[in-house]
Amino acid sequence: MIVKAVVSYDGTLFYGWQVQGEKRTVQGEIEKALFSLTGKNIRITGSGRTDTGVHALGQVFSFEIDEKIEAKRLYKAINAYLPEDIRVLSTEKAKDDFNARFSCKKKTYEYRFYLSETEIPVKERYALKIFDVDIEKMQESVKLFNGYHDFKAFSSSGRTVKSTERTIFDSSLKQFENDLIFTVTGDGFLYNMVRIMAGTLLQVGMGKLPIENITNAFETGNRNLLGKTLNAKALVLKEVIYE
Amino acid sequence: MIVKAVVSYDGTLFYGWQVQGEKRTVQGEIEKALFSLTGKNIRITGSGRTDTGVHALGQVFSFEIDEKIEAKRLYKAINAYLPEDIRVLSTEKAKDDFNARFSCKKKTYEYRFYLSETEIPVKERYALKIFDVDIEKMQESVKLFNGYHDFKAFSSSGRTVKSTERTIFDSSLKQFENDLIFTVTGDGFLYNMVRIMAGTLLQVGMGKLPIENITNAFETGNRNLLGKTLNAKALVLKEVIYE
Repeated sequence: MIVKAVVSYDGTLFYGWQVQGEKRTVQGEIEKALFSLTGKNIRITGSGRTDTGVHALGQVFSFEIDEKIEAKRLYKAINAYLPEDIRVLSTEKAKDDFNARFSCKKKTYEYRFYLSETEIPVKERYALKIFDVDIEKMQESVKLFNGYHDFKAFSSSGRTVKSTERTIFDSSLKQFENDLIFTVTGDGFLYNMVRIMAGTLLQVGMGKLPIENITNAFETGNRNLLGKTLNAKALVLKEVIYE
Repeated sequence: MIVKAVVSYDGTLFYGWQVQGEKRTVQGEIEKALFSLTGKNIRITGSGRTDTGVHALGQVFSFEIDEKIEAKRLYKAINAYLPEDIRVLSTEKAKDDFNARFSCKKKTYEYRFYLSETEIPVKERYALKIFDVDIEKMQESVKLFNGYHDFKAFSSSGRTVKSTERTIFDSSLKQFENDLIFTVTGDGFLYNMVRIMAGTLLQVGMGKLPIENITNAFETGNRNLLGKTLNAKALVLKEVIYE
């Protein structure tokens, strides 16, 4: 049977999702828990990697397991073997051709800022302090991300992909008191893409980049037109959508 | 000169506000920083204590310091000597009779819940997981706190105070997606009062306490009519008001 699982984790103490030797990774911890539970080496497939320090509210992974286990309750058994900073939120029997990576249709990420001149300790773990920004200008910029574009400029080198064209279905920047949340839903994201989008929003908001650089970056693919890759701690993979 | 300072801290790794021997406390760390900065033992007065694990967005303290220092910039100098989980947000010269404790008029606390069947690691540090609650019933209960009451039943024994009568100016329970925030502003709070209010809301929401117990508790002072004292990690001292 193929199982689809939704998992949340605090990325602070992980070297990202993917197994890398002896380093503490989310995939590694989940595979260890599955081994403790079943006595078998079960490989899991994530919807994609998250980097060191990136969090997840609703990452999805899939794996194959013996038919005898009741899928709906499996998450509780897995949680019993997981560290506190990872929790499987649900498990269910999926179709035989389900694959968390290849069946994925959309993903939603959130990047969190807070407005303050000085660091606020209770916000520092999951958000980035910003100050003296033009929020309306940032909200205008966000709209430019929507649609089908070549996001080549919005990617750090280091990983090769066939195509750098992606569709952004929805992109918004919402303010609640002093918190500012950038939410973006797309059919896929390049390496560091959301953190570069967030960095570009910030630079535009600070008046350090003209808003036109965004459309120019789509046309030219020039990484230098955009803001820097912001800190991973403020990024959360919110949801992975399959329909 | 008397200085009024606003401070934020993540209470997770502190034994509360007040100095207690060798234990790591917020007051202790700030007094150490002031000693490093001035070479003098300066005692600070907080608006009140916060217990082990309780956080602050805007706690206030006052102290006396040499006239030669520019009050408005002092907070930056203090921060240079503080650990990362405490940050002074502002400092200003106050009137000669200002005392963070005795001049205080109102305080606002927040208690944060989130709705989920399973723990969500990115929420666990600052909020309490709850599940299967009647939110409307909780919102009805919150209204009962407003006004002038005897809050004797809403206090843990262990600290003696002259009067247990307090005024609650505003009390609300607001939902944002799966987060539920109980905010309460009063002229003063008894030991564990907000955590018992939160525990009572939760028990009423779960159908384990009748809503009438709240008014009965005001009349009788009977602690047993109310919910338990909830976990400190979800409590934040949001603001201390002096006018």
